[in-house]
Amino acid sequence: MTDIRHTPDPRNIDIDRVGIKGLLYPIVLRDKQNDTQHTTAEISFYVDLPRQFKGTHMSRFVDILNKFRAKIDLRAIDEILDHARQQFSASTARIELTFPYFIMKSAPVTRSEGLMSYRCTILAETRSEGRSSSTVTVRVPVTSVCPCSKEIADRGAHNQRGIVTLAARTNRFVWIEELIAAVERSASYEIFTNLRREDEKFITEHAYDNPAFVEDIVRDVADKLMADPRIDWFSVESENWESLHNHNSYACVEMDLSRLRQQS
Amino acid sequence: MTDIRHTPDPRNIDIDRVGIKGLLYPIVLRDKQNDTQHTTAEISFYVDLPRQFKGTHMSRFVDILNKFRAKIDLRAIDEILDHARQQFSASTARIELTFPYFIMKSAPVTRSEGLMSYRCTILAETRSEGRSSSTVTVRVPVTSVCPCSKEIADRGAHNQRGIVTLAARTNRFVWIEELIAAVERSASYEIFTNLRREDEKFITEHAYDNPAFVEDIVRDVADKLMADPRIDWFSVESENWESLHNHNSYACVEMDLSRLRQQS
Amino acid sequence: MTDIRHTPDPRNIDIDRVGIKGLLYPIVLRDKQNDTQHTTAEISFYVDLPRQFKGTHMSRFVDILNKFRAKIDLRAIDEILDHARQQFSASTARIELTFPYFIMKSAPVTRSEGLMSYRCTILAETRSEGRSSSTVTVRVPVTSVCPCSKEIADRGAHNQRGIVTLAARTNRFVWIEELIAAVERSASYEIFTNLRREDEKFITEHAYDNPAFVEDIVRDVADKLMADPRIDWFSVESENWESLHNHNSYACVEMDLSRLRQQS
Amino acid sequence: MTDIRHTPDPRNIDIDRVGIKGLLYPIVLRDKQNDTQHTTAEISFYVDLPRQFKGTHMSRFVDILNKFRAKIDLRAIDEILDHARQQFSASTARIELTFPYFIMKSAPVTRSEGLMSYRCTILAETRSEGRSSSTVTVRVPVTSVCPCSKEIADRGAHNQRGIVTLAARTNRFVWIEELIAAVERSASYEIFTNLRREDEKFITEHAYDNPAFVEDIVRDVADKLMADPRIDWFSVESENWESLHNHNSYACVEMDLSRLRQQS
Repeated sequence: MTDIRHTPDPRNIDIDRVGIKGLLYPIVLRDKQNDTQHTTAEISFYVDLPRQFKGTHMSRFVDILNKFRAKIDLRAIDEILDHARQQFSASTARIELTFPYFIMKSAPVTRSEGLMSYRCTILAETRSEGRSSSTVTVRVPVTSVCPCSKEIADRGAHNQRGIVTLAARTNRFVWIEELIAAVERSASYEIFTNLRREDEKFITEHAYDNPAFVEDIVRDVADKLMADPRIDWFSVESENWESLHNHNSYACVEMDLSRLRQQS
Repeated sequence: MTDIRHTPDPRNIDIDRVGIKGLLYPIVLRDKQNDTQHTTAEISFYVDLPRQFKGTHMSRFVDILNKFRAKIDLRAIDEILDHARQQFSASTARIELTFPYFIMKSAPVTRSEGLMSYRCTILAETRSEGRSSSTVTVRVPVTSVCPCSKEIADRGAHNQRGIVTLAARTNRFVWIEELIAAVERSASYEIFTNLRREDEKFITEHAYDNPAFVEDIVRDVADKLMADPRIDWFSVESENWESLHNHNSYACVEMDLSRLRQQS
Repeated sequence: MTDIRHTPDPRNIDIDRVGIKGLLYPIVLRDKQNDTQHTTAEISFYVDLPRQFKGTHMSRFVDILNKFRAKIDLRAIDEILDHARQQFSASTARIELTFPYFIMKSAPVTRSEGLMSYRCTILAETRSEGRSSSTVTVRVPVTSVCPCSKEIADRGAHNQRGIVTLAARTNRFVWIEELIAAVERSASYEIFTNLRREDEKFITEHAYDNPAFVEDIVRDVADKLMADPRIDWFSVESENWESLHNHNSYACVEMDLSRLRQQS
Repeated sequence: MTDIRHTPDPRNIDIDRVGIKGLLYPIVLRDKQNDTQHTTAEISFYVDLPRQFKGTHMSRFVDILNKFRAKIDLRAIDEILDHARQQFSASTARIELTFPYFIMKSAPVTRSEGLMSYRCTILAETRSEGRSSSTVTVRVPVTSVCPCSKEIADRGAHNQRGIVTLAARTNRFVWIEELIAAVERSASYEIFTNLRREDEKFITEHAYDNPAFVEDIVRDVADKLMADPRIDWFSVESENWESLHNHNSYACVEMDLSRLRQQS
């Protein structure tokens, strides 16, 4: 059978990324609490395709995933990408994994345990000339009390669940747990899965004492990351599901710390 | 060209519903405030197919929508369904329209105006033997203050946005606006699109004075609907995006009022 | 601290279901191929609440899940529900788990392996008077070739991915794998994750030789289930992501087999 | 009442974007076929916030939308953004509108009419120093026949619906309709809402005669845009809902044409 993918292409246009998208696969991740954890990931996996080739071999991506899915950490991802570049004779390879990441958390007073899930993304890319980069994104639900509502109301203050999305590019290994902690320490209070009434009292009061706008949350996260030499670049977005509105409030700060460091 | 859809089918199985699903169309709806409103609807449109026929004519559904989409109200929907039953020689026809419905609301103190959107569904079905029914579903965002948190905390109380889903089958015309109002009067307070600080103060205090569990919200809505002779059946669900948790609290009450009335 | 949830409620309205919704948890499922599999589930978990009680204890649901999540099968689910009824002094308990279920499949010619994911739901309910029921839903992607297009076109035939949703209530244990197989044998051909060119040739030709409307697919699935004495009730929906349209074609058959058996 | 938003912030961090997100609003758009069209948009609207200010005034965004929503085109968007910069004393303002855009299309043989919907996004930003830019994104469903499957199979060829996402930054006005047309002419064939059997025959054969990989589709779109001097930058992604797989194939080309023109 002729392989039409190997025929030359007349249009003379390089393709930046070609591959598979939206494949759901069970994976085993490296985990700070328990060494490993099982989860399920939505995976996209691409290589570049030079102008002279008409098409790529989609099934090879699945072969590579089958080989590596039993233990995925940032080191394994480098191997996956190197393997992909070789198999496809490609100059760049890129993988994106989006998955729920589970952390057992204890309630602040009663220590009741419950698993929190955080939707995370690892996006990694390597290039033939040796440059490689990876960006880890964590999406962290938090609680926020509105400072304005607290200030003006004679009693109570509106508050809500919000989601903080932190993406970071690092020059050294950083645990997903560390990024999540940086966010959770920046809101009115962090969120839990299993709370007793004593915990609920504690969090309600603690959050009321620490009101925060979306602007405050992103500034507090930025403040922490600016002091961490392992972070080269970050973007932090805070989105509050306002309890008085049907739309969300939003703030975002992005910083290229490696460039700022070079300038100073 | 032979039409394979008209060939007989050997399996002897009636099909309950066959048609098109997920068609996005602009529609014009009857509206209490302004007579009509333009919106966009995701539409499913089905008929039954007796066992002797192999297939149906999908393009006829689009022809019928083209004919009627310029002014849709519950009366027009009856015409649409009668038309469909004739065109398809079908004994039942069913249409589902899900759309954002916009209502201009004024803030409680400053009267600032803003459009609220409510995702609504009209599901209507007619049968050849004359029975027809329609169910209107409204999804209403509200704010709720937790009674337990208020009771036990020395200051503040956790609160959050929630969504109340009310589906009602009626024996007479009921405005979408009336169903929404029944929900909005049952939460800690209703939600707005355009609030000034005076409004925010008012709502924060008012909601704090009226804490409500998801259980309270569905009971309050049920209470109102039980007193309305136009309602034959309803289901009301309340789902709170808990501000201390990453999952939601939920309560549901369903009642067949026409049967309860017959029994009493 | 007073527990406001225990105070009496004046409205005199029973709540059908109250609990938690949308909790994402890692679970271990019983699996036909490998004994167990790890996956992640979105969980809802409810009990009823009699009219005399104001509120329920949401954290107890999480305690019960923590106790049982390490090995979930239909037997464990009965235990979970019995446990819930006792803990809450409730007369009914209900749990819904929606999760990707993974099955290793071999390509039809080359036997290349790849994991397929199927989004499944287990919905189970028990009642104090001893009745209990569980419904298993499988969502199975398939390929379908349009019989009409094949008939009228001089070459080719439009085809597409579709999703078949089969929900079944059974009186004896049925593997998820059996329900999936009933669907996969009813389309133009089943779908795979890892195909070589020889497989692609085989499936293209086989599917072209077996064209199927959405109507055909649901009838073929219905035909198989009607012959299975373990099935008490089923609903099967087929939805094709038509390759010539931006909307989907849809067909549905629902049958209460236990009632049909009583009538005959 | 003190306005806590005006108090100084000690953290010394500028906020890139702050505002409202996910507001659903009815809008009237300029339209090539009919002068205007009514649709519904999900809107995000942001300004920057200098380091010295603690918070922004979220309700002002709604006031501005209320003023302008009755007729939105690219010119009105510039006015909206200038207005926002003044109202907020901000140096940048940014708006994103995502909406279904409807175009009446006639079937290729019978000329039967049906409205197609295309999910589009307009993202516009202005800055105090006078630079402004807008990016229009169109998402166009198409049909694609697999060249490899056609080549190797003795009969038939697998095909499927796919979605092509084209984002373009232009230096002059370009109609949404023109961007959509560039994509529709690059697939195996375009997609319709209302087809008769004669049309289905025509499209099936025409698509079979014009097989296209995801790689081919993005190259053909790129080819057209490279020849258009109004386009400064574009990104085109093609994603096929493969009819033999449960995941999608994907290709992407991005080009900064203004830079390429400067270099040549």
